[in-house]
Amino acid sequence: MKQTTLGEARKLFGKPERVVWAVAKYQDNVSICPLGWKMNTSGSPPMMAISVAPPRFTHGLISKSGQCVLAWPGEDLAEATLLCGTKSGRDIDKFKEAKLTPLKGRHVDAPLVKECIANLECVVIGEMRSGDHTIFAIEILQAWVNENPKRVLCTVNDASGYDFLLQQGGYRFGVVKG
Amino acid sequence: MKQTTLGEARKLFGKPERVVWAVAKYQDNVSICPLGWKMNTSGSPPMMAISVAPPRFTHGLISKSGQCVLAWPGEDLAEATLLCGTKSGRDIDKFKEAKLTPLKGRHVDAPLVKECIANLECVVIGEMRSGDHTIFAIEILQAWVNENPKRVLCTVNDASGYDFLLQQGGYRFGVVKG
Repeated sequence: MKQTTLGEARKLFGKPERVVWAVAKYQDNVSICPLGWKMNTSGSPPMMAISVAPPRFTHGLISKSGQCVLAWPGEDLAEATLLCGTKSGRDIDKFKEAKLTPLKGRHVDAPLVKECIANLECVVIGEMRSGDHTIFAIEILQAWVNENPKRVLCTVNDASGYDFLLQQGGYRFGVVKG
Repeated sequence: MKQTTLGEARKLFGKPERVVWAVAKYQDNVSICPLGWKMNTSGSPPMMAISVAPPRFTHGLISKSGQCVLAWPGEDLAEATLLCGTKSGRDIDKFKEAKLTPLKGRHVDAPLVKECIANLECVVIGEMRSGDHTIFAIEILQAWVNENPKRVLCTVNDASGYDFLLQQGGYRFGVVKG
């Protein structure tokens, strides 16, 4: 074992990371924030946690509405993920710009995303600051799946087991070969 | 979109999930708890969060010591992961049973694991209950890497991009093809 920086160490264990979109609505504002930082946190009740940076527009929408949808993009949504991750919902309508279709869920006001492979309707149960992000602990009320499933989008390295999709800036998207 | 159970939905987006071991020590007790439920939570300071079920022996060791090591197993540690995940540290010495070598870190009492591809020394900053697990928010003080890195162990499905390693019960381990 040798000491190194966290950035160097993460090259060994940081990929693959599945991508999920946090979709939130408060009053007339709707936005989409792509995240790698999420985890399951409970089997019963079914819960997850997500980490969102406070400056993000979506952070305020989640915090004020107490709700979100977790929408899982497939391999056809790498470009949309990049757009939603690099523009702010303060400036653009992400559904419109990324050509996405909002669908009405059963339990929350935030929309499902028709083009995603699955959507989870969630309510916020707890909130904790962790450094420069907020951890939202959320309960999953309802799951929805696409009738035409695709492979889940990941951030990846250059291993041969991936089909590579798109690279820009620090992002490198791909999917595990099917 | 059609409504379904969370279990069915997770078949579409739940894999791959990288595996990490939480290693904790309190007084004379040391244990290792393999986890899939972890995420980054902060860039500055560098932080992560892990979800651990309170009945786990390691849960008490983390909670009482306020520290842990996150040790990342490579492809040669699928059997050790299964052993550490299915036995309790109350009953066995997991380092001994799984033929692992504890190493002394710089900042925390919990040992690094020599055979892992990387180790992170961590201190607990926050704790929040989320359903049937506890979320520990932890700050990373020091990273260590193995001079002979291997591919990071994941739980996987049957996609062709993985080298399959081991299946038992609900666990299916593999690595992304290199």
